[in-house]
Amino acid sequence: MRRVIIDTDTAGDDTIALLTALYHFKVEGVTITGGNVDFDQEVENALYTIQVFNPDYNVPVYKGHERPILSIGETVHRTVEDVHGKDGMGDSFFEKADQRPEDGHAVNFIIEKVKANPGEIEFLAIAPLTNIAMAIKKDPTIVKDIPHIYIMGGTNNALGNITAAAEYNFWVDPEAARIVLHAGIPITMVGWDMCTDYSVMNDTDHQEIAAIGTARSKFFMDINRVVMKFNKEVHKIDGTTHPDTLLVAIAANEELMIASNDYFVDIETKGELTRGYSLVDRNNRSEKSPNVRVCEGVDREKFRNTLIKVLSTNSY
Amino acid sequence: MRRVIIDTDTAGDDTIALLTALYHFKVEGVTITGGNVDFDQEVENALYTIQVFNPDYNVPVYKGHERPILSIGETVHRTVEDVHGKDGMGDSFFEKADQRPEDGHAVNFIIEKVKANPGEIEFLAIAPLTNIAMAIKKDPTIVKDIPHIYIMGGTNNALGNITAAAEYNFWVDPEAARIVLHAGIPITMVGWDMCTDYSVMNDTDHQEIAAIGTARSKFFMDINRVVMKFNKEVHKIDGTTHPDTLLVAIAANEELMIASNDYFVDIETKGELTRGYSLVDRNNRSEKSPNVRVCEGVDREKFRNTLIKVLSTNSY
Amino acid sequence: MRRVIIDTDTAGDDTIALLTALYHFKVEGVTITGGNVDFDQEVENALYTIQVFNPDYNVPVYKGHERPILSIGETVHRTVEDVHGKDGMGDSFFEKADQRPEDGHAVNFIIEKVKANPGEIEFLAIAPLTNIAMAIKKDPTIVKDIPHIYIMGGTNNALGNITAAAEYNFWVDPEAARIVLHAGIPITMVGWDMCTDYSVMNDTDHQEIAAIGTARSKFFMDINRVVMKFNKEVHKIDGTTHPDTLLVAIAANEELMIASNDYFVDIETKGELTRGYSLVDRNNRSEKSPNVRVCEGVDREKFRNTLIKVLSTNSY
Amino acid sequence: MRRVIIDTDTAGDDTIALLTALYHFKVEGVTITGGNVDFDQEVENALYTIQVFNPDYNVPVYKGHERPILSIGETVHRTVEDVHGKDGMGDSFFEKADQRPEDGHAVNFIIEKVKANPGEIEFLAIAPLTNIAMAIKKDPTIVKDIPHIYIMGGTNNALGNITAAAEYNFWVDPEAARIVLHAGIPITMVGWDMCTDYSVMNDTDHQEIAAIGTARSKFFMDINRVVMKFNKEVHKIDGTTHPDTLLVAIAANEELMIASNDYFVDIETKGELTRGYSLVDRNNRSEKSPNVRVCEGVDREKFRNTLIKVLSTNSY
Ligand SMILES: [Ca+2]
Ligand SMILES: [Ca+2]
Ligand SMILES: [Ca+2]
Ligand SMILES: [Ca+2]
Repeated sequence: MRRVIIDTDTAGDDTIALLTALYHFKVEGVTITGGNVDFDQEVENALYTIQVFNPDYNVPVYKGHERPILSIGETVHRTVEDVHGKDGMGDSFFEKADQRPEDGHAVNFIIEKVKANPGEIEFLAIAPLTNIAMAIKKDPTIVKDIPHIYIMGGTNNALGNITAAAEYNFWVDPEAARIVLHAGIPITMVGWDMCTDYSVMNDTDHQEIAAIGTARSKFFMDINRVVMKFNKEVHKIDGTTHPDTLLVAIAANEELMIASNDYFVDIETKGELTRGYSLVDRNNRSEKSPNVRVCEGVDREKFRNTLIKVLSTNSY
Repeated sequence: MRRVIIDTDTAGDDTIALLTALYHFKVEGVTITGGNVDFDQEVENALYTIQVFNPDYNVPVYKGHERPILSIGETVHRTVEDVHGKDGMGDSFFEKADQRPEDGHAVNFIIEKVKANPGEIEFLAIAPLTNIAMAIKKDPTIVKDIPHIYIMGGTNNALGNITAAAEYNFWVDPEAARIVLHAGIPITMVGWDMCTDYSVMNDTDHQEIAAIGTARSKFFMDINRVVMKFNKEVHKIDGTTHPDTLLVAIAANEELMIASNDYFVDIETKGELTRGYSLVDRNNRSEKSPNVRVCEGVDREKFRNTLIKVLSTNSY
Repeated sequence: MRRVIIDTDTAGDDTIALLTALYHFKVEGVTITGGNVDFDQEVENALYTIQVFNPDYNVPVYKGHERPILSIGETVHRTVEDVHGKDGMGDSFFEKADQRPEDGHAVNFIIEKVKANPGEIEFLAIAPLTNIAMAIKKDPTIVKDIPHIYIMGGTNNALGNITAAAEYNFWVDPEAARIVLHAGIPITMVGWDMCTDYSVMNDTDHQEIAAIGTARSKFFMDINRVVMKFNKEVHKIDGTTHPDTLLVAIAANEELMIASNDYFVDIETKGELTRGYSLVDRNNRSEKSPNVRVCEGVDREKFRNTLIKVLSTNSY
Repeated sequence: MRRVIIDTDTAGDDTIALLTALYHFKVEGVTITGGNVDFDQEVENALYTIQVFNPDYNVPVYKGHERPILSIGETVHRTVEDVHGKDGMGDSFFEKADQRPEDGHAVNFIIEKVKANPGEIEFLAIAPLTNIAMAIKKDPTIVKDIPHIYIMGGTNNALGNITAAAEYNFWVDPEAARIVLHAGIPITMVGWDMCTDYSVMNDTDHQEIAAIGTARSKFFMDINRVVMKFNKEVHKIDGTTHPDTLLVAIAANEELMIASNDYFVDIETKGELTRGYSLVDRNNRSEKSPNVRVCEGVDREKFRNTLIKVLSTNSY
């Protein structure tokens, strides 16, 4: 079984992605980055999700950077409770899981785990890239020991979600995204455009999922209550969006990715309107060497089946 | 007959657009902005095109700004002879037309013509927006006297042509684009995405056009020699692209535009990677008021027919 | 007598500078740029000052750009009535002069006057550089015909006045400053640091000036009422500041400038904190060629005498 | 005895500053940041300097960040061997000291030492602020446990050294400087302007120091060979400059600082010309609250005496 660290700002679809990762991989650790909602809430959400997956499991959860690299002083980091609910769980307000987070910082965990298992640990990155970037900066020698990072982030010359120009994960910490994308680690990027094109679960899908009747399917229904409404109002999307789950599903089974290309990808950190914009140089006007494999097409049916299978399994 | 000023960096498709404008409008003047190729060559190209349209015509041509607003000192302005040929005419190297450009600066002509005909003169803008921006800055009172500007420029959350982030006209002079877009004049924008989606003329189209046998159709074939090859290599587009002609055709007959919406549009002038990026705020995350009607769909067949009709008419 | 055009945002010390220019030069025209106070008020202030100098004079006054190049849409241009009084004249609220401004735009006047008198017309620039920059952009051939521009603006690695990083004239229109400084015209720059070091007139000076008893000395006292208070509170300067008059006095008699050097000077247009910052590369770390002669020392006594002499002469 | 951590990019004056710190404080650890010269050379320089101070000493030396936060991929970090010699020791090429650096990362050491001794450990920061910034980001709770940071960096509205706009330490890692300055820790900043105004040791000083005849004075003479020449050529300064030693001397004895004020200080990270510029808002035009005590005057004689005393003591 492939071994991974999953880095997440656990709220909304992060939870379903975490279930999917636990289903398909040996998850060595879950590292939490500041993003979607209150940081401590994210930690609880990850712990709770592990318990939903299997009450007997004990996958270590590490607290990492609560805020982006350049968030300084009184700068307010922008969370998105409007998307995911006040608790990031569709306003479900679950009880705390029994498992508690580990001592030690996520960045230390990442460095130690990678150095102890060179070439073995892949990364599933479904949050702002602060933790991974800071690990690379603290110990640049981990770069050659990480075989692959799958990143949910950016958008391939298409509409963003937090601004017209940018996707949320890259927008929250564009400097971190830039550090990771240029580190020299093999990267697969699944952008927001893939999410809107291929991951949307509509009312029919939701009815089918509700009918499954497992703890996980019930959890799915709870989590997605708020985002359904948000998507209709803001993104004119009739259904729930699953960017993080899509990323993990592709990592688990690359056959889901029916089109992809290697491109030069870079992140704008200086613009007035374009903070976190991901330049995917599809026509290679920059004449720079590719650094990222960008997902450009997904087998929607296979993805849906992956999701259904994860949710259909009883937790124990 | 509606009266227009057409502002152009005459090379390649600008010429066909100019033919189309002369066919559909009373063109009060042609103003030249630095862009595609050497400025003086652009002036000659405009004069020659008028002669192709009708050797008896004498539409005044005014020289405007040779370079973008912030092009200073020894900064090199980037022309694109690789796209349009050394002469901007598919390496046709036509003889000079008899007609010569007018004395007087394009900016003065624009201001005087508008002030003398308040509410009467529409603009067809198929070049970097330097001239129009400078006219607005020099006499801001023209704003209320211009009923509409049709602009070929930008891209609606899609791949650019001169960089992945930007379309050429807005990239050459992003400050000018910003000035014009925020001036308060009613604007219709037809972006590079509309061009690639709806304006491409492929080999079959070209055979049909070649068969027409008019001076104009022959001119079309000459002009498009170089761009055909460029599009295949760089943009992976199998045909010629007609952004400027599409803009003029839409201005002449808005029925060609089968989808459009009013959005807030702004131009990045500060980014490292995103110079000239056009933010089209389709999901209104900025919560700002719309300032531009953005074309989002074209009746490709109607456009093609418009083009064929212009080229089919004998020049005299 | 040397012939000059003086470009001014007439308020406060601009008026005394204008008196000084009328005293020492043949002023071919006064061009008004948006800056210190309401634009139309600036025009009136210039006309009134000419009348104070000599009621029989009729020096043409041309209206130019009311706002900076990149001031777009509803952007508010920042005037400084707190420094100069509501009317820019120390709250004197003078009656309008009889003379009225000319028809025609300042930019046209500048271009025509220079082209008609190549190598003859020097410029005294004591305002944001919008007009001069726009003239250079509209007709770049004037560059070789302008023998010298004296510019009040920027600061030589010293504290600014409108922000810690920038002096007002360059801050209002940094793009214009950049265009002018890199145009290739010989330039002398007298920065805000020279003003605070050498131009301050304290209470003793004011008593002496008041005692002169001419129309001009009375005018000086009126004009400087508000700025005296402002300087004490904001700049901790005990007296009135005369940046524009210092510039004109130096232009009239270069002996006042007891130290100067040629440096590479450039203007920041992209920073978050440093809009309009003037980089004066005194240690030549950029290794770029000098483009500006920067004033670095003034004979304060000679400057004071120049001022007194101008104010002592009866207007007629 | 006050306890400190000294963070240094050990080369040139860093060594004399380190001697001074060892003389006046209980140095809990020396942390090395990438800056002046090759990182491993900096580590050796610190170890050698400790040995010069006292061959029996064993002050732990920790390796930290080798490069600035946003130095990514193949970006070349700019070292300054031209200032300090190829080895950063005036081309002395000393043998390696016996003591070796500690295991463990400087950032971990900083966090652990501070958390174990809340309110006890002051910082002497004489290098780019990468290590300290990264410690603050990794564990923001250390902020309240650090009583004071003395920072050599920036310049108070005066000429920079690496560019006209910026001082080297802030220029190398402006993002780190911004993070530290806004963290909420009490800060004293001694800028490059204080160094050029008060710390220069001229030929006479050097003769006196040479005559002392201790190991430390001999070391001083060796170290300063290259910078003497550099200062004459580039900065037109006739002597050696001691920014880092001045900082440590002031921290040891605040009486040396005869003038200082609390100002709002911020760092430009976005400009084209002004990377690392330190805005010291002396006239408070930003109307923001002070975050830094800025040194504005030094008792030069007392500083000189401090230096002489440190160098006069025999190492053991
Ligand atoms: Ca996420
Ligand atoms: Ca064009
Ligand atoms: Ca002025
Ligand atoms: Ca240092």
